[in-house]
Amino acid sequence: MNKITAAITGVQGYLPEDVLSNEDLTKMVDTSDEWITTRTGIKERRIMKNGASSDMAAQAVMKLLQKKNIDPLEIELVILASVTPDYLFPSTANVLCDKLGMTNAWGFDLSAACSGFLFALTTATQFIENGRYKKVLVVGVDKMSSIVDYTDRTTCVIFGDGAGVVLLEPNEEGLGIQDHILRTDGSGREFLIQPGGGSANPSTFETVEKKMHFVKQEGLQVFKFAVTKMADVSAEIMEKNNLSSDDVAWLVPHQANLRIIDATASRMGLSTDKVMINIQKYGNTTAATLPLCLWDYESQLKKGDNIILSAFGGGFTWGAILIKWAYNS
Amino acid sequence: MNKITAAITGVQGYLPEDVLSNEDLTKMVDTSDEWITTRTGIKERRIMKNGASSDMAAQAVMKLLQKKNIDPLEIELVILASVTPDYLFPSTANVLCDKLGMTNAWGFDLSAACSGFLFALTTATQFIENGRYKKVLVVGVDKMSSIVDYTDRTTCVIFGDGAGVVLLEPNEEGLGIQDHILRTDGSGREFLIQPGGGSANPSTFETVEKKMHFVKQEGLQVFKFAVTKMADVSAEIMEKNNLSSDDVAWLVPHQANLRIIDATASRMGLSTDKVMINIQKYGNTTAATLPLCLWDYESQLKKGDNIILSAFGGGFTWGAILIKWAYNS
Repeated sequence: MNKITAAITGVQGYLPEDVLSNEDLTKMVDTSDEWITTRTGIKERRIMKNGASSDMAAQAVMKLLQKKNIDPLEIELVILASVTPDYLFPSTANVLCDKLGMTNAWGFDLSAACSGFLFALTTATQFIENGRYKKVLVVGVDKMSSIVDYTDRTTCVIFGDGAGVVLLEPNEEGLGIQDHILRTDGSGREFLIQPGGGSANPSTFETVEKKMHFVKQEGLQVFKFAVTKMADVSAEIMEKNNLSSDDVAWLVPHQANLRIIDATASRMGLSTDKVMINIQKYGNTTAATLPLCLWDYESQLKKGDNIILSAFGGGFTWGAILIKWAYNS
Repeated sequence: MNKITAAITGVQGYLPEDVLSNEDLTKMVDTSDEWITTRTGIKERRIMKNGASSDMAAQAVMKLLQKKNIDPLEIELVILASVTPDYLFPSTANVLCDKLGMTNAWGFDLSAACSGFLFALTTATQFIENGRYKKVLVVGVDKMSSIVDYTDRTTCVIFGDGAGVVLLEPNEEGLGIQDHILRTDGSGREFLIQPGGGSANPSTFETVEKKMHFVKQEGLQVFKFAVTKMADVSAEIMEKNNLSSDDVAWLVPHQANLRIIDATASRMGLSTDKVMINIQKYGNTTAATLPLCLWDYESQLKKGDNIILSAFGGGFTWGAILIKWAYNS
């Protein structure tokens, strides 16, 4: 029997309808389309006016199950990455399973900031490779608008709302997830943080007054780390797997900042036509960026393509995953 | 080569020094030692006056590494189950790794309420069984006092603070984690919930005013589900593995309520001397109850013992894990 690998066999995204453009933001804070575009590459982002993260996740998962003609009862495990779960508990994975009738699945929420999808995909892979699980969903979802301070021009221009999901199934041709390099450095925790609402600073009138429930970012510090670490780890996974830039079909980078993406592609020796980019449309949707990229570019992916997913985010957390794509769509 | 299994090779707990007794609680809410003891089995619980969940987790992990003479740099992965993480992000696993110099580890927080430790242990098991990871920490920690309303007599008598950790390593004798049955039912989400602070109800003056950041429990509903589901799944994992009550050395039950524990043991045909109980000392420490039990009873466990871990909690989430204990201490 061949070794079982874990392959992505379907992908789906969901974006809320409401668009928040750079032009809209100029009416809310002191900024300009030119400033935002130059520094981030973002032109607009989507905002979910009503509902919680589970509602976006449910839309994405429902469409994926329909597209793949899979009964919700076939799903065995749901791993959901988010920094904006519906609640601290119960888990959003539980809420999602209930909303869609996935009553045979167990699941949990995974918290690892912008690297959440990478960490969740790696985790789900282990369950498939062990031969016991056949259908696992990996969801990345964030309603960043629920924790963005729309009077803080340094953060409100960056983030958007969205959800993405992939289906993971066993593969006996050696396709699917090949390797991962994942890292964390908690010494950077102060630079990208939601200070309030956990056991460090439980919710009080004072934490609300001090805006401690909003995302805080020291942009320059995060940029400096991100631009180095994301490029390093992406180059490292190529070397480790003896891949030249010609061998890599696609880079799927976390969509936080176009300049970080460019630096990563450059370090890997990849031309821009091999880099998935949708930051201009959605901004940084945190845990949802990677599956939303795969969804946008799905039709261009070919069976056997080497693709590298790469991310950097709060924690700090970062890493890269090498995938041999498993299907033509 | 034998199949690699994942074995617990060390366990450690940490409890804060401050004791909150039933007598103390009678001065805070309308209750009595007799009422609390009869309905829950709890006599006292520990409260962490200063610090966050990562501080308790760091104490437990530090002592485990010392006891096992393991360099922090040897740890490759940390999975931390909690409903009271330090922050929504960065993850408490990242903070913990930084505090103890575990700079080679990646990790994440896992949210699955009172079943968090079961879900995290099962997840960590997959990484070991695949042969790539050699030293994984599974942490269960909760500072429940950070989300308990000490004017609500139905919940404040139940919960306590604490942390527990196990080290997971590969085993080639077939010892360690043998099987798991894990379940969720999100339709029960309203019965045990922290309503505020996530994307469903972002933190505002109103959510604080309405006490939505405290744990809410409809005790009767939770009790009804728990007493059935925890007993069912514990009996089911015995049947599935052809174990009679004579074959089971220990039940390690989530410490939420002595009556639920008794019902589970009874359904499994186990006498009370085979049931780990420390609820009288610590109350319900949520994700920490199971490792704290293993820690309290470690000296009584023998290599080869069949032990069943079983839990039920918010979500609803529940399940059971069968372990063949791997060492004599």
